[in-house]
Order: sequence, then C-alpha cells, then structure tokens
Amino acid sequence: MGQGPILYSAIGHVENPFRDIAAPEEIRAEESRVVLDPALTDGLEGLEPGQRIMVIFHFDRSHGYELRQHPRGDRTQPRRGVFALRSPRRPNPIGVTVVDLVAIEGNVLRVRGLDALDGTPVLDIKPA
Amino acid sequence: MGQGPILYSAIGHVENPFRDIAAPEEIRAEESRVVLDPALTDGLEGLEPGQRIMVIFHFDRSHGYELRQHPRGDRTQPRRGVFALRSPRRPNPIGVTVVDLVAIEGNVLRVRGLDALDGTPVLDIKPA
Repeated sequence: MGQGPILYSAIGHVENPFRDIAAPEEIRAEESRVVLDPALTDGLEGLEPGQRIMVIFHFDRSHGYELRQHPRGDRTQPRRGVFALRSPRRPNPIGVTVVDLVAIEGNVLRVRGLDALDGTPVLDIKPA
Repeated sequence: MGQGPILYSAIGHVENPFRDIAAPEEIRAEESRVVLDPALTDGLEGLEPGQRIMVIFHFDRSHGYELRQHPRGDRTQPRRGVFALRSPRRPNPIGVTVVDLVAIEGNVLRVRGLDALDGTPVLDIKPA
C-alpha cells in the first residue's frame, strides 16, 4: 500500500443547474445528465432505463478535510469520523451515489437522484 | 472534464487469504481485514460493528479493458457494456462493495462480504 499515487481520468462529467453549493436534497430532486466521453458509448450497452445505477465521481470542488467533522457542517451536532460520514471533504474526495436511470440518449445518461454539482468529473458507472 | 489525471492515495489496504485470482463468491464468504493508515484512525469514529459500510478500492491487478465484455469472462454469455458490468477491467479500475462491519480493532476493520484480493489498495470507506 501507499506506493505512490493512483491515477484516474474522467470518463465524463455531470450537467445540471447547480453550479455552486447546493443542498444535496435540492440537487437530487432534479434530473442530471451524465455526459460520457463519446468514445466510451459502447460501454453503456445493456443498461436499461428504469434501472438503478451507481455513479462514482470526483468532488472537484472539495479541498482538504478533517478526520472528525460535524455532520453536514452542522455545529449543533457532535463531530464524527469522516469514514462514518458522506461529507465531500475526505482523504480521497470520491462520491458514490445510486441514481435512477431515466433515459439513455447516445452518450448521455439522464438520471434522477444524483447529488453532484454541474461539471463534476465522473469516474465510473456500475449497475447498482 | 478531462483536464488531466485525478490523483488519489491509498488510505489502507486489504488483508485476506486470497493472493491471486479467486471467485468473488469465495472471497466474499471469508472475513477480510481493512488495515487503515494508523494516522487516519480517528476517521472511524462513529462506525459501529453490525452496520453495513461501503469499501471503495483500486483493482491494482487489473490492466486494460474492452468496452464490451463477456460477463465474468464467460464466453457462452453475450458481451455487454463495461458500465453494465462489475468487471474489474474498466476505464478506471475502481471497485465498490458493501460489506458487513464485523469489528473495529484500532485501525483495522474486520469485514465480511468484501471481494478484493489480498493487498488491494483501499481508497475510501463510507456508511452504506
């Protein structure tokens, strides 16, 4: 372990109306588009609208972290370990959200339930 | 999107008896240890034995991929898109598995249900 960095490249990005900080609930209620690198479109074969998929993404606007954090930054709640929270402020700022696949249009997945900001790099998609 | 690599570092590694290829079912049936970097131990505060946690890891023994693959390498089954499969052979070889947290012993999590080989770098842990 720990022998140097692990390198990934975005396979696509998120598009939705949320460019800045927004409450996760607010983003999840809206439809988002996961725009895949067109060269990877064949990798979507077999995914069907109506199914649940896991979207793995990079919290690109998250910088730094503490090992113990107030849940959702709410100082009225006691701090907890970062691995017991889904905070974006974590050692490796990876987000994983299970979403509803609404439609597939070429290299674009329309999904509901994603809580990632506009422009977020996507790392992977898996069946949930 | 796509502006250069995304860099992560392992937060720990997996320990179990499976050093080489093994059927995922076989690994999942055994207990594994997730050995966290001791400097990150405070990040576990609030996790409780008996709960389900998500382990995010790097398939370090996976190299290359095809966009369409036979499920589990079984050539009797038709090829499907890599994003419709959980194959380790994917553009970013990230694995995500929900496991049972059996016990926490300092910086070590004993878990059941993990399907990662011995020595696999771990990237993140989240509540499931």
